[in-house]
Amino acid sequence: MEFKKRTLANGLCLIGEINKSAKSAAVGFFVKTGSRDENEQINGVSHYLEHMLFKGTEKLSALEVNEAFDRTGAQFNAFTSEENTVFYAAVLPEYLVEVTELWITLMRPALRNEDFKLEKSVIKEEIAMYKDLPSFDVMDRCRRLHFDGHPCGNSVLGSEKSVGNLTAEQMRDYFARRYAPNNMVLACAGNFDWGQICSVVEVPCGKWQQQAAARELEHCGGSKKNKRVEKSNLAREHISLMSSGVSAQDPRRFAAALLGIIVGDDVGSRFFWELVDKALAEAATMQFGPMDGTGAFCSYIRCSAGNATKVLDTVSGIFQSLSENGITEDELRKAKNKVLSALVIKNELPMGRLGDLGSNWIYLEQYRTVEDDINAVKAVTVDDVNVLIEQFNPGDFTQLSIGPAQNS
Amino acid sequence: MEFKKRTLANGLCLIGEINKSAKSAAVGFFVKTGSRDENEQINGVSHYLEHMLFKGTEKLSALEVNEAFDRTGAQFNAFTSEENTVFYAAVLPEYLVEVTELWITLMRPALRNEDFKLEKSVIKEEIAMYKDLPSFDVMDRCRRLHFDGHPCGNSVLGSEKSVGNLTAEQMRDYFARRYAPNNMVLACAGNFDWGQICSVVEVPCGKWQQQAAARELEHCGGSKKNKRVEKSNLAREHISLMSSGVSAQDPRRFAAALLGIIVGDDVGSRFFWELVDKALAEAATMQFGPMDGTGAFCSYIRCSAGNATKVLDTVSGIFQSLSENGITEDELRKAKNKVLSALVIKNELPMGRLGDLGSNWIYLEQYRTVEDDINAVKAVTVDDVNVLIEQFNPGDFTQLSIGPAQNS
Repeated sequence: MEFKKRTLANGLCLIGEINKSAKSAAVGFFVKTGSRDENEQINGVSHYLEHMLFKGTEKLSALEVNEAFDRTGAQFNAFTSEENTVFYAAVLPEYLVEVTELWITLMRPALRNEDFKLEKSVIKEEIAMYKDLPSFDVMDRCRRLHFDGHPCGNSVLGSEKSVGNLTAEQMRDYFARRYAPNNMVLACAGNFDWGQICSVVEVPCGKWQQQAAARELEHCGGSKKNKRVEKSNLAREHISLMSSGVSAQDPRRFAAALLGIIVGDDVGSRFFWELVDKALAEAATMQFGPMDGTGAFCSYIRCSAGNATKVLDTVSGIFQSLSENGITEDELRKAKNKVLSALVIKNELPMGRLGDLGSNWIYLEQYRTVEDDINAVKAVTVDDVNVLIEQFNPGDFTQLSIGPAQNS
Repeated sequence: MEFKKRTLANGLCLIGEINKSAKSAAVGFFVKTGSRDENEQINGVSHYLEHMLFKGTEKLSALEVNEAFDRTGAQFNAFTSEENTVFYAAVLPEYLVEVTELWITLMRPALRNEDFKLEKSVIKEEIAMYKDLPSFDVMDRCRRLHFDGHPCGNSVLGSEKSVGNLTAEQMRDYFARRYAPNNMVLACAGNFDWGQICSVVEVPCGKWQQQAAARELEHCGGSKKNKRVEKSNLAREHISLMSSGVSAQDPRRFAAALLGIIVGDDVGSRFFWELVDKALAEAATMQFGPMDGTGAFCSYIRCSAGNATKVLDTVSGIFQSLSENGITEDELRKAKNKVLSALVIKNELPMGRLGDLGSNWIYLEQYRTVEDDINAVKAVTVDDVNVLIEQFNPGDFTQLSIGPAQNS
């Protein structure tokens, strides 16, 4: 395993971790932009723009983009979050240069008015579809309620209104500001030739214009508000809880991830034993979500409307007991095993490794080996987690529920 | 990479592919039993039984099973198909022995009457849930229509009626016959110690009783019937097509898989360009499904009810042109790249490698390296695919559609 790094004059950072024994290679552009970098007027533009990058460039039609990926046999995709827009592909080593050149080309899209107009209806359908998924909708609404005006509460998809009103001009302006070379990282992992990648990147990417691409990083403790939304078509109660946590830069992020597993892993967690196994709830999970300069614990619970009060009492009891007695050695040991095996298995594949490589660079400007992360997880003590519980009190949460109309 | 094999006196076959540079290890029991080994009275028992294995043994409660997996940090799961029931886990190398011992224990479940009764409602809910998914329902019904009385047409989940009438006694009888050591394979992949695995397997598994566990392998050419089902709650037309193909044992399976990609891959296939890209259909895919002694090409298409006739005309045109002109060199080259990159990436991870290792043994009693499969894919010629089209004529299909009531 060998780490390589080069920064172009315009600020584009190119990193790579070479693993000559890997059978595949992966490449990705990590653009440090997402819904938190939007305002109300342009909410949804990051995600919409991600779609538009596949519509082609001045020289390449959408059809040709499609065929170009096809030729490499790539497994490729893109996603947009609150913080990042990521474009990635995994291929056989002999196709890495070709697929890298393709991504480089796509990073300077045409953003044609006709494509913008056509794609708008696709985006609107996606918004409508997700609005119909209560498990998604409740998390989206809870995030907004928790961040309460802070840009981290912006929805990734945007609203029908904000997307409806968005103009191609606004998107081009956002693109020019945010897809600046100094605001993105190109990462490679697996079996590839570093010199070859550098040589295909330098000339085309070197022409990209540097921009001021800052991000607002004000801290947000969360509103701790409580709200319930009624929807006549629902049969179940969907509950989302959010409380404040440490940032993606904070050394305590490993302890926070373990706390998430102990409280709310799918299986074997406190939520599992007290809510799911006892058949009070059909689903009950909590996860730690590290973010740029801030962080949050997010829970999702689904139960019958009749059980909602009992479920919330049980959740209060779980958090109270955590505050009073902390976690146990046995819980921490099990949580570490889960986190470690997921970490190792994910990073074993170049496509998985790419994700951690890129986000460590985006958030920390730091190269961390898998070993570094393994050691950081192993080093977490019961005390570390208990101190975190004391400092952040996950029982002090913002709450949003969606459920059927109440008749009593 | 080193391959190991041992067969116990009772017929249990233990295989392993050791990769000392892997960071994880995977283990799985491949039981050669599924819905095609059932009859109408016990349809659904294989899948129901898979659930029951997690309910524990004479000495282990369901709760203890859960905790035991938890301790190893395993990523584990199980699935049932028409042909196989597979239980697998991926762990850090130091936990492979522990998780293997756990699976061995679970392979001799208690099958308690109380658990059987409780689990029945879970299974019935699963049946109801999948019935509500038209994309699943249409494939399930088309398979039944295509195999038309042949056991390969049996639904994996079974019907509410067959599962409702099933007794614990019938399940125990099925278990005794089908979970015989001579009807299953224990496979390991990744970084592990072969001697250590053998030593934990031999004593407990050596006690399992050999049984006559044959499978009916009569060939089935498919009914080629055509049926439409109306459902008032649907807004879209869902179409499934099935035609006969080569078996999992047939050397032509690689050519058949490539034909599936050329005709019906998500992106870049003939279905994609003529149906999806032209916005005639929202989804249109075809896949080759190799089976024990037989095989099938299965297509799924979703479109507006108004477009259904035009879609089916286009599909006929695609198959007719394939019959008349065959495929092109360029199509085959692209399809190979896709198949090869998917194959290599999947097999790069011990958990993925386990799947191919186990199914090659189940179907062929043969160890094939990833290289063997790569070479077999590379060796396929345009002629091989064209001969296959001529022999199997995928345009001569069984058709089942589900859609809204027709008003005209």
